[in-house]
Amino acid sequence: MQTVGHVRLNEDGTKLVILDQTQLPNRETYLELSTAEEMYEAIKKLRVRGAPCIGIFAGFAMYVLARGFTSLDYAGFAARFHEAAAYLNSSRPTAVNLSWALGRMERVVAEHADEAPETLLPRLRDEAQTILDEDIAMCKAISEHGLSLLKDGDCVLTHCNAGPIATSKYGTAIGPLILGAERGRKMKAFSDETRPLLQGARLTSWELDRAGVDVTLICDNMASMVMKNGWVQYCFVGCDRVAANGDTANKIGTSGVAILAMHYGIPFYVLGPTSTIDMSCPTGDDIKIELREPDEIKTMWYREPMAPEGVKCFNPSFDVTDHSLISGIITEKGICRAPYTESLKKLFE
Amino acid sequence: MQTVGHVRLNEDGTKLVILDQTQLPNRETYLELSTAEEMYEAIKKLRVRGAPCIGIFAGFAMYVLARGFTSLDYAGFAARFHEAAAYLNSSRPTAVNLSWALGRMERVVAEHADEAPETLLPRLRDEAQTILDEDIAMCKAISEHGLSLLKDGDCVLTHCNAGPIATSKYGTAIGPLILGAERGRKMKAFSDETRPLLQGARLTSWELDRAGVDVTLICDNMASMVMKNGWVQYCFVGCDRVAANGDTANKIGTSGVAILAMHYGIPFYVLGPTSTIDMSCPTGDDIKIELREPDEIKTMWYREPMAPEGVKCFNPSFDVTDHSLISGIITEKGICRAPYTESLKKLFE
Repeated sequence: MQTVGHVRLNEDGTKLVILDQTQLPNRETYLELSTAEEMYEAIKKLRVRGAPCIGIFAGFAMYVLARGFTSLDYAGFAARFHEAAAYLNSSRPTAVNLSWALGRMERVVAEHADEAPETLLPRLRDEAQTILDEDIAMCKAISEHGLSLLKDGDCVLTHCNAGPIATSKYGTAIGPLILGAERGRKMKAFSDETRPLLQGARLTSWELDRAGVDVTLICDNMASMVMKNGWVQYCFVGCDRVAANGDTANKIGTSGVAILAMHYGIPFYVLGPTSTIDMSCPTGDDIKIELREPDEIKTMWYREPMAPEGVKCFNPSFDVTDHSLISGIITEKGICRAPYTESLKKLFE
Repeated sequence: MQTVGHVRLNEDGTKLVILDQTQLPNRETYLELSTAEEMYEAIKKLRVRGAPCIGIFAGFAMYVLARGFTSLDYAGFAARFHEAAAYLNSSRPTAVNLSWALGRMERVVAEHADEAPETLLPRLRDEAQTILDEDIAMCKAISEHGLSLLKDGDCVLTHCNAGPIATSKYGTAIGPLILGAERGRKMKAFSDETRPLLQGARLTSWELDRAGVDVTLICDNMASMVMKNGWVQYCFVGCDRVAANGDTANKIGTSGVAILAMHYGIPFYVLGPTSTIDMSCPTGDDIKIELREPDEIKTMWYREPMAPEGVKCFNPSFDVTDHSLISGIITEKGICRAPYTESLKKLFE
C-alpha cells in the first residue's frame, strides 16, 4: 500500500488527514476531517486543490463517511452513501476529478447490492486506495519520461503549479525534477510566481525547495531574461486541456513562456495524463477560457509572505531588449529605424 | 509660463507643492515642502519619482531653499546653496537627472559671481522653469511623433510607467495616448501591471484613466493572450538607457513584451529623449542591470488596492499555447512529438 502525506487516513481509518494548502508556504498545518461538512468545506475553501488530488481526497472521504453508516442495512447504507456523495460533489461542481472519483466509489456500492456494510467497507477502502495508486503510477510514469530528457546541471523553468500536492506524488510538470532529486540527480529550476494567484510562489517553489531541488523564484516577466542568460535548458508546464491538434490550455501566461522559449531556442514540453487530452476538441480555438474577477489583479488578497522564507529569488530591475525586436526608437527628434547604429548616430550629428 | 500640477511652486513661491506618488492610486495627496529635509525625504521615499520629474523637482526645490539664504552676501549664499544641493544630491545618488538638474542650478550661481541674492533669485527661478519647459517640449515632441503612428481605434500595450507624473507633461511611452486624448482621439490601452513594484497597476492605469484613455489593466503574463486575440496594434515602452546599436534597457519584462510582439507581428516602439541614448555604450551587453531585494517578490509590500477603483481588468485564468510552440507532450504513455494530430491519436488506439 502506497500512501502520501498530504491526503491520508489516520491510523485507525476513522479520519481523513490533509495538509491545509491555504496555509502554505507559511505553515504546514494538517487537519483531521471526520464529518461531511468538514470535507465539503476543505474542497470549497481550496484547503485541498489540484484536480487529481481532489479525486483522491474524495475516495478516502467517502470511506471515512461510510464507516458512520454501518449500523444500517444495505438500502439505508446506500441511501446515506449517495446523499453524502451528492453533497460533496456540490462543493466544486466543475472539478471533473471530484465527480469522477465519487462516481467510482458509488459504483462499488451499486455493484455489490445487498452486501452488509461490514463487507462493503474494505471494498471502499480498496477503491480509494486504487484511485491513489493509479495516480501515483501515472505521475511516476510521466516523471520518468520527462526525466529521460534531463541531465545533471540542467535547469527547468516552470509556470504555475503541477506538483505533488496537486496530485498524489511527484506531480506532472515538476515530477521529473522531484523524481530526479529522489535519485540524487542535480537539476535546477526557475519557478514563475504566476500572477494573479501566485501558485508558483506559494506552492511550486515550496514543493521544489522541500524536495531538495535548487529552485529560484522569479516574477513572470523575468522569464525572458533568465532564458536570455542561458540559464534555462527546458520549459516544463502542466495542462488543463489538450486539443486533438496539440494546442494546450494551461494557466494564463503559459503561451507567453512558450513563445519566449521558441525565441531563445529552448525546448518547451507539456506534461499531463492522457485524461487531459480531449480528442473531441479539434483545436485550441474550441477551448473556452474562464474569465475571473478583476479583484484578483487589483487587490492583493495574500497578506502574508508569498514564498518560502529561504527560497532564492532573482529580481533584476531592468532587462535589455535586443535591437532586432524594436520597430522604431522615438525621440523628440523623430522616429529612428534600423539599422540603429546609423540612425541613432545621425541624431547627434 | 507653463506649469504642471504634480510639481509646482505655491502662489508666493515659498513652497514646493508635489503630488505624493506613494499615495496613488488610492489618494491624490499634495504635500507642501519648504525645508531641505522634507525635499530629501520626498525623493528618498519615492514621493517624487521618474528621472525627468526628479530633475524638475530639484530645480524648483533649489529655488525655494535659495529664498532662505537672501540675508547673506554672495559668498555666504553660494556656500549655503552648494551645501543644500550636495545634500539633495545624496538622496538618490544614481539618479542622473537629479545631479544634472542640481548642476544646472549651481551653474547659475557660479556664472553670476558677486551678484546680490535678490538678483540671483529670479535667475534661479527662470532656470528651474527652463528645465520644466524643456521637458514639456521634449515630451510633447515625442508624443507627437508617436501619435503620428496611431489611428482612432488602435490599442497600445505598455509596460511599467513612463507617463506624465514621471516627467512633466504627457510622458514618453504613454505620451501619444495622452496627447491624443487631449485632441479627442479615441485610442485604447493595455497596461501591464509590472511586477514586482506594480508601476503599471498603480500609476500608468491611473494616469491613462484620468486622461480619459480607455485602459484595461492586465497581469504581465496576460500580454500574450491579448496580443493573440488581435486586441493590440502597437507596443510603446519607455527606456532607461539605449545603447548605440539600439539595444534598450527598460523595466524588467520589456524584452518579453518585445518577443511576444514580434511573434504576433505587432510593431514594438521605444520612446524616450535623446538624453537616454548612450553612444558610449556599444550594445546591451555593456549595460549593467541593477539587482534588487528578494523581498520585493516574496512579500506584498502594497497593502492597499493596487489599481484605480473603476479601472477595467482582463483576467483570464488560462491561455492556449499553439501546438507549433510545443516540443513535446509528455503523458504517462511517453513523449508525443509533432505532428500531434497523429501522435496524440495513437495514444488512444
